[in-house]
Amino acid sequence: MSAYQQLTDLFQRLSRYEHLGAMAGWDQLTMMPEGGSEARAEAMAELEVLMHHTLTAPEVGEWLAQAATESLDDTQHANLREMQRAWHDAVVLPERLVEARSLAGARCEQAWRRQRPENDWAGFAANLREVVSLSREEAAIRAEATGTGRYEALLNKFEPGLGVAELDRLFDDLRGWLPELLTRVVERQRAHPVRTPEGPFDREAQRRLGVATMTRLGFDFDHGRLDVSLHPFCGGVPEDVRLTTRYREDECLGALMGIIHETGHARYEQNLPQAWRGQPLGRARSMGVHESQSLTFEMQLGRSEAFLRQLAPQLVEHFGARAGFEADNLVRLAQHVEPGLIRVDADEVSYPAHILLRYEIERSLIEGAIEVDDIPALWDEKMQHYLGLDTRGNYRDGPMQDIHWTDGAFGYFPTYSLGAMLAAQLMAAARRAQPGLDEQIAAGDPGGLFDWLKTHVWQQGSRFDTPELIRRATGEPLDAGYYRRHLEARYAG
Amino acid sequence: MSAYQQLTDLFQRLSRYEHLGAMAGWDQLTMMPEGGSEARAEAMAELEVLMHHTLTAPEVGEWLAQAATESLDDTQHANLREMQRAWHDAVVLPERLVEARSLAGARCEQAWRRQRPENDWAGFAANLREVVSLSREEAAIRAEATGTGRYEALLNKFEPGLGVAELDRLFDDLRGWLPELLTRVVERQRAHPVRTPEGPFDREAQRRLGVATMTRLGFDFDHGRLDVSLHPFCGGVPEDVRLTTRYREDECLGALMGIIHETGHARYEQNLPQAWRGQPLGRARSMGVHESQSLTFEMQLGRSEAFLRQLAPQLVEHFGARAGFEADNLVRLAQHVEPGLIRVDADEVSYPAHILLRYEIERSLIEGAIEVDDIPALWDEKMQHYLGLDTRGNYRDGPMQDIHWTDGAFGYFPTYSLGAMLAAQLMAAARRAQPGLDEQIAAGDPGGLFDWLKTHVWQQGSRFDTPELIRRATGEPLDAGYYRRHLEARYAG
Repeated sequence: MSAYQQLTDLFQRLSRYEHLGAMAGWDQLTMMPEGGSEARAEAMAELEVLMHHTLTAPEVGEWLAQAATESLDDTQHANLREMQRAWHDAVVLPERLVEARSLAGARCEQAWRRQRPENDWAGFAANLREVVSLSREEAAIRAEATGTGRYEALLNKFEPGLGVAELDRLFDDLRGWLPELLTRVVERQRAHPVRTPEGPFDREAQRRLGVATMTRLGFDFDHGRLDVSLHPFCGGVPEDVRLTTRYREDECLGALMGIIHETGHARYEQNLPQAWRGQPLGRARSMGVHESQSLTFEMQLGRSEAFLRQLAPQLVEHFGARAGFEADNLVRLAQHVEPGLIRVDADEVSYPAHILLRYEIERSLIEGAIEVDDIPALWDEKMQHYLGLDTRGNYRDGPMQDIHWTDGAFGYFPTYSLGAMLAAQLMAAARRAQPGLDEQIAAGDPGGLFDWLKTHVWQQGSRFDTPELIRRATGEPLDAGYYRRHLEARYAG
Repeated sequence: MSAYQQLTDLFQRLSRYEHLGAMAGWDQLTMMPEGGSEARAEAMAELEVLMHHTLTAPEVGEWLAQAATESLDDTQHANLREMQRAWHDAVVLPERLVEARSLAGARCEQAWRRQRPENDWAGFAANLREVVSLSREEAAIRAEATGTGRYEALLNKFEPGLGVAELDRLFDDLRGWLPELLTRVVERQRAHPVRTPEGPFDREAQRRLGVATMTRLGFDFDHGRLDVSLHPFCGGVPEDVRLTTRYREDECLGALMGIIHETGHARYEQNLPQAWRGQPLGRARSMGVHESQSLTFEMQLGRSEAFLRQLAPQLVEHFGARAGFEADNLVRLAQHVEPGLIRVDADEVSYPAHILLRYEIERSLIEGAIEVDDIPALWDEKMQHYLGLDTRGNYRDGPMQDIHWTDGAFGYFPTYSLGAMLAAQLMAAARRAQPGLDEQIAAGDPGGLFDWLKTHVWQQGSRFDTPELIRRATGEPLDAGYYRRHLEARYAG
């Protein structure tokens, strides 16, 4: 057996282990009773250790070196490149740290479920300090091994090859025009009052509308499910994608837009190249590219006037006629801009401000410039600066609002805004490639968009690195100008 | 580190892998969309191979030998004995067979979901042949290694140390009096007609009654859940027990009695000795002992007149007053004896006949005396003989009615009747130990029974072998006479 074949067997095995972890992780957030959390955390940490151990076994380094000398075709070469990256990412970390990180993250996340409703920052901070300490240790080890900065080393787990300098260039651009645009849009929308349809909105009716919408957007229910979790996510494996949302009875658009968003992630996963299932080449490219798909679905499509006009009669069908369901009002509602405390509920224009805030805080945290105890004051200051909101004492809707930090996913937040930029650029490219696209969407048929994404993004897996994927799909490098022009056109046009 | 300590670490690790498998298995039967089945089967087979590989690593045999010479206390000795048993059970099987068996079982079970409603015996038989072929191979290997017969070698996976001779002695006893008792009871009940309450019974109301009943029976919802599956089961791990049932809208007692049954399994799991979690000593003793707990809950308690009189007002509360909910009728209904096609729906008196039938067929199958294609004719003949029913052509409610054979669990069926015998014997012992027990149950407080079971069975884990556990709990060896007297008293008294 060639070394390359040994490696494909190994990664096949790892992907099966990952399947078990993905399902246990989904269950943990959707089904598991609280009393099961400790045993679950231990089981998942054990699995992480196993995967790390399997990937970093002494022979794997030898196989990688040997495989590089074997006769491989282009896709095999690309697969080997991704194998090498996964191996390098893993081999630098000691097993002890892998296990400790997993356990601390699970503990912090599990306690957060109780602590958040209780606004218990002190309790949360105690767990978070442990998570941060382990993440700093990881960052130092990765930085040492790759010769990058510490934060960049974590960022590259989610967005391989993206430098902090490039990120700062993109985010400085954002900082330059976003506050002014936000002020302008809020001012402009004041002249067009929005009517919020009144609840209650039955949860089961919301779920049915969600399922109907997922079906229209091409979600394959033979290979996936829709469930409920505190924090919406898209998990599972390509063959069985587990999508979640959360319903509020007083409001009907939030859960639906969340579902549309996650359906973008889900279709990417469900349409990854089947021939490379279980191999690194068959995986989604990066978190930024993943988010570009969810945001193409939610922002480029779901909150577009064309789509919302199609949605209006569906709302009536599922909830009965209500004041505010008129198409004109629905467009204003779904495109309403209003700075708020919660990132996942944020509108498209104020969302990037949440990301800037997180990025600035987590980078300082990882670089050791601040400590966990400094977060609330910084949070208050930045919420005031970017969004003009007073958040003092409200930890629940402040740094405790979501689970990314609890899991130690520092370096992840920036990929949300990278995704937003890329989504705008991909949409522009799809429009150029398919001149009738907007008319098709307005007529209720977004299939042309999905076909284009399938060809240019989903089916590419990890064949090319992110810049090359973007260049091949759109003909140019990542350009934040598309994002700005999209926001200007939709909100200030 | 001592060899014994190495072993406890190893088994701790194995129990964490098992946790992942238990949750993936639960998900497979309750949540997973059909399109996810192939990837799931591969992931679970990979896990089985991993566990087998981990347990049979060359150093484990050495540790076991070394540990036997180390200074251990009584419980450590018992734990080592169970470790040795688990290792012997595993080390005889080649990894290839472990994987093939897991994959074939999953394929057969997954296809059965479709094939059963379609009554597709030919399709089912094709998969079952593969399962049987692998089980025969396993039986031959185990028989060779242990010097027992082939069927006995499989039986001992579920009921360690039980010989076929002892089983035949117990089952010959059953065969001697069961048909006559069944005829007598059916005849006797003809004089007391039963009124079946008319549906529909709302599924959600049934679920709420189920949850209320589980709560009264001491199920800990902080460490478990109730869900729906095609075939009811109790899965998960002691810290997070996953119990399932299935609801029919035209009938309200079946799902509830199923829930009571599974709650017996669940309480055993939830009350295994905490100090030995993750160690072989901390596991439930055997499948027969496990079934004795579910049958103590369902048959000794749940279908007793005392319990049913308590239940009557609960039915009214959950479904509204209906003809047939009167306590006298409810007792007749829950104790109604009528030979039927479906084992899991069978009454207490005809149930053992289903087990005799399965035992006779599966033993012949494993010993090579018959082939899969012979099953339907034998099934028809034995259903006619034991229960007087014509099942020709009805494979769906015949050999395709449940999943045990699809999973290759040959040797499992007899443990159901062993459990029934033991349940009667345990109940008699609990009564002797707690003279006011029946009055307490009649007053709605079965706590004394649970306390006794907790002390004498649940908290014992696998400390003693089955005969010793029975002797310590009841003061005598397993004696089918208690079962016969229980049936006589309840149904022919």
